[in-house]
Amino acid sequence: MARSIQSLERAAAVLRLLAGGERRLGLSEIASALDLAKGTAHGLIRTLQQEGFVEQDAATGKYQLGAELLRLGNSYLDVHELRARALVWTDDLARSSGESVYLGVLHQQGVLIVHHVFRPDDSRQVLEVGAMQPLHCTALGKVLAAYDPVAHSQAADVERRVFTERTVTDEQAFEELLEVVRARGWASDVEETWNGLASVAAPVYDRRRMPVGAVGVTGAVERVCAEGELHPHLVAAVRDCARAVSRDLGALRRF
Amino acid sequence: MARSIQSLERAAAVLRLLAGGERRLGLSEIASALDLAKGTAHGLIRTLQQEGFVEQDAATGKYQLGAELLRLGNSYLDVHELRARALVWTDDLARSSGESVYLGVLHQQGVLIVHHVFRPDDSRQVLEVGAMQPLHCTALGKVLAAYDPVAHSQAADVERRVFTERTVTDEQAFEELLEVVRARGWASDVEETWNGLASVAAPVYDRRRMPVGAVGVTGAVERVCAEGELHPHLVAAVRDCARAVSRDLGALRRF
Repeated sequence: MARSIQSLERAAAVLRLLAGGERRLGLSEIASALDLAKGTAHGLIRTLQQEGFVEQDAATGKYQLGAELLRLGNSYLDVHELRARALVWTDDLARSSGESVYLGVLHQQGVLIVHHVFRPDDSRQVLEVGAMQPLHCTALGKVLAAYDPVAHSQAADVERRVFTERTVTDEQAFEELLEVVRARGWASDVEETWNGLASVAAPVYDRRRMPVGAVGVTGAVERVCAEGELHPHLVAAVRDCARAVSRDLGALRRF
Repeated sequence: MARSIQSLERAAAVLRLLAGGERRLGLSEIASALDLAKGTAHGLIRTLQQEGFVEQDAATGKYQLGAELLRLGNSYLDVHELRARALVWTDDLARSSGESVYLGVLHQQGVLIVHHVFRPDDSRQVLEVGAMQPLHCTALGKVLAAYDPVAHSQAADVERRVFTERTVTDEQAFEELLEVVRARGWASDVEETWNGLASVAAPVYDRRRMPVGAVGVTGAVERVCAEGELHPHLVAAVRDCARAVSRDLGALRRF
């Protein structure tokens, strides 16, 4: 069994450091944050810079993430079968629902958004592909936690942060909530993560019938809810979309 | 001066290999493509996998790019000042022109698309953030080659590939074309890269008055051109947008 390579692990730690919090850091700040000798940190950063993973700001001399990560991230999307199969169906879902559609996969104790279709209106919207959502309180996250055992143990282990007064953080309440998700086949989030927003999501399965992702719709509570519950036609549309993507991935051949 | 770290350079080469061509490769294929011993390649891939940069396809055992690259690429966009400043202006340009808007920066002998605003209609469109465009024949690329000396030498050095029968590849013709770009202050591409599509782009400057990127509009020749030339109102709108972004970056303070 090959051993993992220390310089690579450290380089990944540098990139993660630059991806969170401050985002522009000097050499000494990077070295001290990662508990590295300054010379060691310099060697790592210099190579990362040469490969395009890190850039140096000309004005301040500080380091930030580099363009090569964007290029490689885009290639990741191209290779992602789930996303490729979901493109048409999620577009249709955005049209029929009139709301934003998200496709998410489990990544690092959270939901990584791999596809986002804008709400089909004229409003200014920011693309959220590559963004992370919490597992314990979003509709996408609850779907993954309910159906994917790895996601479940991660959602159970991490600290369940309070986002709004409706966020469920208690362990038993959270497990009961996942039971409801499994019984119904879909999950909702009514102002549990963002005030004013509600979501509904359903699981996507691959040809081995493993839950590989979740697809969902998010919109203003005033539009997508009635008396605190998601509109049934929206729930049906999301579940239809999830089934269509699953079928395209080969999941339904064995049902 | 710190030396560059060989294992990091090799890891970057693995990622670049997986980002191009085949995109799903076995261990032996990776080792032989990069001229590495199989054990060396295995150590690299194992660490890359552990850090989320590479994923192993369960069905085939082959390796592909991992989700962590998407997350980091998204963080790169968040930190990118040019893109942040351009968001509002490019949105306005897409609305006023009714066409797709692209913002590009120089990266690895090409134009890296860092922002893409969809054409404001109901058509199905694919987000091209993270995609690359050639320097020598696109409107964005010609702007960079005309104003950025580094881009110019790269466009001059690389093989200028033929995309359509209108692609300019001859060295002298290319230099004359860049002279026209500099004289007019903007560049066009009328079916030189994609049949049926035309573009116009203008340079964006930062507070040091350096050309840091290019902004442009792309659309069907039937809509954006008349008698083989871009509509003047579209050229004006693109140049207005480039000036607005430059001003937000501090470029005009010294004019």
